Formats: sequence, structure tokens, C-alpha cells
Amino acid sequence: MTTTLQDCRALDAQDPLRTLREQFSLPEGVIYLDGNSLGVLPKTAAARVAEAVTSEWGQGLIRSWNSAGWFSLPQRLGDKIAQLIGAKPGEVVATDSTSINLYKVLSAALHIAAQDAPQRKVIVSERSNFPTDLYIAQALCKERGYRLQLVEPEEIAGALTAEVAVLMLTHVNYRTGAMHDMAAVTAAAHAAGALTVWDLAHSAGAVPVDLNGAKADFSVGCGYKYLNGGPGAPAFVWVNPQHANRFWQPLAGWWGHAAPFEFTPDYRPAPGTARYLCGTQPILSMAALECGLDSVLAIEAHGGMAALRAKSLALTDLFIELVEARCAGHGLGLATPLEHAQRGSQVCLTLEHSPHAPPLRGSLPPEGAVTALGRPGGGESAAYAIVQALIARGVIGDFRAGDGKQHLDILRFGFTPLYIGFEDVWNAVEHLKQVLDTGEWQSAEFNQKHAVT
Amino acid sequence: MTTTLQDCRALDAQDPLRTLREQFSLPEGVIYLDGNSLGVLPKTAAARVAEAVTSEWGQGLIRSWNSAGWFSLPQRLGDKIAQLIGAKPGEVVATDSTSINLYKVLSAALHIAAQDAPQRKVIVSERSNFPTDLYIAQALCKERGYRLQLVEPEEIAGALTAEVAVLMLTHVNYRTGAMHDMAAVTAAAHAAGALTVWDLAHSAGAVPVDLNGAKADFSVGCGYKYLNGGPGAPAFVWVNPQHANRFWQPLAGWWGHAAPFEFTPDYRPAPGTARYLCGTQPILSMAALECGLDSVLAIEAHGGMAALRAKSLALTDLFIELVEARCAGHGLGLATPLEHAQRGSQVCLTLEHSPHAPPLRGSLPPEGAVTALGRPGGGESAAYAIVQALIARGVIGDFRAGDGKQHLDILRFGFTPLYIGFEDVWNAVEHLKQVLDTGEWQSAEFNQKHAVT
Repeated sequence: MTTTLQDCRALDAQDPLRTLREQFSLPEGVIYLDGNSLGVLPKTAAARVAEAVTSEWGQGLIRSWNSAGWFSLPQRLGDKIAQLIGAKPGEVVATDSTSINLYKVLSAALHIAAQDAPQRKVIVSERSNFPTDLYIAQALCKERGYRLQLVEPEEIAGALTAEVAVLMLTHVNYRTGAMHDMAAVTAAAHAAGALTVWDLAHSAGAVPVDLNGAKADFSVGCGYKYLNGGPGAPAFVWVNPQHANRFWQPLAGWWGHAAPFEFTPDYRPAPGTARYLCGTQPILSMAALECGLDSVLAIEAHGGMAALRAKSLALTDLFIELVEARCAGHGLGLATPLEHAQRGSQVCLTLEHSPHAPPLRGSLPPEGAVTALGRPGGGESAAYAIVQALIARGVIGDFRAGDGKQHLDILRFGFTPLYIGFEDVWNAVEHLKQVLDTGEWQSAEFNQKHAVT
Repeated sequence: MTTTLQDCRALDAQDPLRTLREQFSLPEGVIYLDGNSLGVLPKTAAARVAEAVTSEWGQGLIRSWNSAGWFSLPQRLGDKIAQLIGAKPGEVVATDSTSINLYKVLSAALHIAAQDAPQRKVIVSERSNFPTDLYIAQALCKERGYRLQLVEPEEIAGALTAEVAVLMLTHVNYRTGAMHDMAAVTAAAHAAGALTVWDLAHSAGAVPVDLNGAKADFSVGCGYKYLNGGPGAPAFVWVNPQHANRFWQPLAGWWGHAAPFEFTPDYRPAPGTARYLCGTQPILSMAALECGLDSVLAIEAHGGMAALRAKSLALTDLFIELVEARCAGHGLGLATPLEHAQRGSQVCLTLEHSPHAPPLRGSLPPEGAVTALGRPGGGESAAYAIVQALIARGVIGDFRAGDGKQHLDILRFGFTPLYIGFEDVWNAVEHLKQVLDTGEWQSAEFNQKHAVT
């Protein structure tokens, strides 16, 4: 028996996390399945940011570095993030962007590898890793004479040769929602003599993570997805304590100095993860990030990460079940693993060989234009138009372009258990069914209306 | 005749910039002479940031990347900054921190130098340059086999040998307020075959800057000082168009890609300065920065940068005159040049051989502690205690520690013509005179009260 709308309502009524939704300001008429791209607004954030602007900045001015605790924000927020990723207090700092933090930790990993095993000259990663991770790795390869080897997930084990210095992976794949077994993959890398760098962009606050338990080496992650930190919120860095004091990182700015206010001309790295700080942090965005972190840490009083994970899997299971049952015949495929242990908190659909999905022509922006998030820079895609039709109905997921070869275009739906319920899943699938059944995304009128939105 | 309080009031009454002060929320009872550390709050910022939080983030969510123009913020704000530093539209991006941006442009400069003149292996800078600039240069030297040569300002010309790849300077020195002649120094560097990197942290919005006119090569600057962008506001990058497409920079994240939303695995740098972007920017802090930029650009309707500069010099001249006339006999010295062409928008005092200023003992935090902005990590300082005494009276300047050798401790006072008036200068000097005359900064009671503030 397929789950019914009544069943969904019953599931919501029994959901131990149901009240956590009240923490957030959600727009009316929207089912938001894009918390894996930008998390929603915690109700506390408006007042907290206003306080940071009018009182701390406006009245306190420079004194607020002390009196309002601005100095310790990277560490204070880092300690909150640590609770969500299996790290200890003092091991994490909130700072800069994920891309920049990846540059820091990958640099440090390569430095350590160069000392311990200078003959190892390869970084291994996944071909469908998030592009910015690959770009940063390419830059470091170019700078330091390394080679970036890109493989499919099933090829990772075989790629861990005696040439590999670092295995750099995103824990949950941004395109497919597939999740690696961090402990097993890290053990395999270590057995092969390689260090690991884990990007937790789609993991922190979404799935259980245990960096220390997995004996991971370096990690970075994002503040504005499942951590609800606001647009462009600062990211974070974790470094295994055994490596933390071993090497500096090249973005050696004054905030990572052992004594920044001595103003000495020589750099002396701070002990521990503090050396992964560089310049002054955007305090207003940090203030919002703290509200986001608190909104996730509220899970502790409701069964903790185990309860969050259980609901996440129930939501994604339900979405898969309903799409299969109610949207059959439209050529949808599933890019996300059915196996729970291999699934993050999102479901990604492909659209191939669909009789209702011929390629769209003429409605997309010119090559290279960045006029819409999730919009392809070139080419054409039925998947893109369907996502736009859903957004027009208030069901916000997103589109991720494929490479036209082995990686297909993706319709991506993130499920954030803190504010998404089972009835939301039902309604989202109902809209998807209607979009596909009516073919409204194919109409000239629709395409014209959404050509530049 | 020394200027009188009545004269100061008359100067304020005649000041063509006087009304610009109304743009800002200034705390009652404070004379703020620290806008060179953190600029004040524009009145527009509270509403603008609240809109970004509640409407753009809360309601628009991911759609606001397009609908609220988040995507183009680095360029839109960059174009506003360009107007203040002699750059053209499209040449500047607002992004990341000054330290990180310096790493980008210094990397790019070294790349270009390595192509054009691989035998040049030296970066020249000033010994009293802001430390983070020196730390970043040290990191790059270590990475790439360069040597950092630190000199005094008067030694720069002689240091420009055939070994020098890059001359990296801060236009206005953070400790002394001394300003370089950017065009002349750049011409000398070019004549010697070196590229120039200019840090405008204490220049942008404070003094006239003409990067294109000076034929500078690379530049970075700070958003939270004279640009009033708020605590930790994003910084900026300018690259001379002749270099902009010549090389990528190593922080090659997706925002600097030619087509970020194609999600291609290979990095292809965007044309022009856009390639100096890396990851997602902190939007809330960017929103505040725009208000700060607008508050400075308001000068255009009041005589422009020439009027701002004239008032800045009048304010600093007045401060110097009044300190000399009214605070004599306390051992104060002037670290800032008297020559207008060599002076930024601040005045820095030293305190040596003062009969009223014996070293303080026992009231400072332990070595390495960062408990107060502008507080030395170790050692002891009468200058520090005097600054604290002034702050206790509502006159906010700051302290910068010396090296105990050729660079003395500094009492630093920034003069921001947008919101500081001539009577403020009078009152600030009156407080300084009273602090010195009474010796209140030396009392046990004062030291106890301010030991950990």
C-alpha cells in the first residue's frame, strides 16, 4: 500500500521534531526543499543581527571586539559546530568560505605528505565532487607539481596507490546525495599511506558525522546550508589534533598568529586550529551563523542527531516511494542510493528517455551567463524547466547541470528534518506529478515567463 | 595665536561637510577617533541589513541570489569602491578579507614576475608595514623560494635592485600615518623592473587615490575602516587591466570561474578582476558595506574627495597644533609627518622620555593573550594606559605597540572628516591634557578598573 496523505498527516502528528519547525520564519505558500543550498531563517536571527548592527557596532564601536565577544566568535561558533561533527571543543574554527578553507587544509595536507612521503605526487578525488573543490585542488597541483586524479566513487579503492598523497572527498555528494562511509574510506586511505580531506558541506547538521571516530585528517564545511547560517555565512575548518601543530597553512594572516596584537613582523602560528584563521571575519554574518547553529543544536533536546537522522531517512524514503508510485511513466530516474547507509539528506532525480521531456531550445541564457542559481551556463534541459515549473508553484528544489555524458542533469530536493514535514513531501510530489502530467513546463507561455527569472 | 575653542566652533559652522555627519549613528558622549580601525554606523545600515535578513533571506530564500541581486554584489560594490580609488567600473571586486586578497594579488604578481624576470627573487616591503601583510608575504616566500627584504621608508629607493620582483607597500602606514607618493614610488619600482602591490587599508575613503593614474599594478584594501562597512566587512581587490587576464590566482574557487553554474570539473578563470573571487560571500556583511560606501560617496555632492582631503588636513593640522601648544612638557612626540603630501588622515603620538610616564607594571595581560584590541600581548606601556584613560573619558583612539627598539609605542588618533568636527578635536586635546596633567592613568584605582576592560 502506498502511503496516503492521511498517513503523512499522522506521521507529522507523531513526529518528535515537529515543534522545531517553529524556530524558523518560513515564507507562506512555499515548500522549501533547498535547505541544502541555503538554509532557512531562524526567528532569532533578525533581533540578533539588529543587536550586532545597532548596539554592538553603532554604540560599542571598536570596544565591541572585547565587550561583545567579537574576538572569540570563530572559536565560540567553532565549538558549537564541533558538537555536530564529532569534534572536541577547540578543534574547530568558523571562518572564511569553504573554498578558502579547503585551500588551507589541502595545503597543510600536502605539506605533511611532502615531509613524510615526498614521492607521493597525486591527489585523488571524485569526478563529480563539487567543482570548487576540484578547482582549488587544481590550483594547488599547478603550484606544487602534483597531479589531480579524478575517479568515480567505485574506483576510489583501486586508485589508492603508493603515489597518492591525499584523498579529498565530499562526504555527501552534492549532485547525487550519495554518502561515503567516512570511517571505512579513511581507513583504506590510511592503509594506503594517504591523508584524507573531507568536505562536510552537505553533511554538517544533516547526517551524523564523527570526524575523530573516523580518524579523519582534515575537514571543512559550509555554514549556510544545513547549519542555517544565512546567505554566504562563514564556513569552518577542523584539523585532527595530531596534525594541528605540525604545519602552518599558507594563508598566514594576523588572526592566525600566536599573538596578533604584539604586531611583530615575523609570523608565529597560533597553537592548534586557530592558525587556520587569516583575516578579520564578517561579524554581522557571524552573528547570524550563531543563530543558525543554535537552531540545529536544539535537536539535542529532541532525541539528538539520531532522531534527526531517523526523520531524514523517513522523509527521503517517503519522497522516493511517492515519486515512484505517483510519477511513473515520465522517465524519472533516481540518482540517490536506496541504501540508507549510502544516502545523505537529499533525493536527486534524473530525467532520461522521457517521452514528455524533449530538449528545450531557445529559452536559456547565453553561454557563461550567471543569471540564475542552478541554471546551466549553456546547453538545454528539460530537468531545468521542470524545476522552474515547480518553483513557480512554490516547491523550491534546484537543478544541477550534468556534463552531457556520464553525469546527467539533476533535479535536486533537499530534506531538512528541522522544518520539513511528511505532508510537505506529499504536497511536493503532488506538484511534481501535476507538472509532469500537464506538461506545463513545456508551454511557450511558461518558458517565456521563466526565461530570465 | 593658538586656535581657540571659539575658532573651532567657527570652523565647524563654515565646514561644507558638516551635514554629512547626520548620516551616522554616533554614540552619545563619545569623540570617536578610531574610524581608521572600525568606521561608524551609517543610519541606513540597520534597515538595509534587516531587509537582507527578513525579506531577502527569510522570504526570498535561494531565489534572492537573482531577485535581490546577491550575485552581483562583489561587482556592484566594487564599482562603488572604484570611484574612490581612481579605478574604472569593472576593475574592482569587493570580497573576502584584506589578508586573503593580498595573498591573491601577491601570488599573481609573483607569477607574472616569474615569467618576465625569473631571476628576481626578492619582495621588498616596509619593516613597519601592517604585520598581516608581512605574514602573507612570508608565507608566499616560503612556498615559492622568494626572500622578503624589510626596509625603512627612506631605504626603499636604494632597495630596488635587479633582484626585486615585487615592491609591496601600504600606502598610508598604520602606525605613523605617513603616506607614500604612490605615483613616484610606482615609477621608481617600474624603472627598476619591479611590480607594485599597494595596500589601501588606511587610504580608501580617507585620502585621494588614483591607481590608474599612478600606473599601479595590484591593490587591495579594507571595507571596515574609512569605508564604514561594519565590523569585518569584506575587503576589495583591484588589478591593473594590463595584468588582469594574464594570470589566475591560486584561490581559484567557483566564484572566479568563467561559468560557475556549468559545474564543469576544470577551472577556467573568468575574464578580468572577477577571477579574484573565490567562494560565496557573506551577504549580510556585504549589505552593510554598501551602506558604508554610499555614506562615503555622499561626498560627491559636497566638493568631492578634494573637500574631504582639505578638511582631513585641517583636522590633523589642528590636532597637532593643539597638542603642541596645550600638552607640552609631557614628553609627547609626533610620529606623523608635518608635510601634508606625506600625511594620511591620522595623527600618531609617541611618548618617550616623559617624566610623567614611567613604565607601568603589573596591569597588563599575560604574554600572548588577546583580551583587548590594541592591547599589547606583553610588556608594559604608559602610552597604553593613557589611551585607556582617554577611552574612559569617551575619547576613543587606540594604541599600537612598538618593538621596543626603533619603533616606539604609538597613541593613534584617526580623523574621519565625514563625522569629526573641529570642536571634537579641541575637546579631544582638552581630555588628553587633563589625563596628562592629572596623571589619572597612573593611579592604582584607574589601573585596577581598566586592567581587564
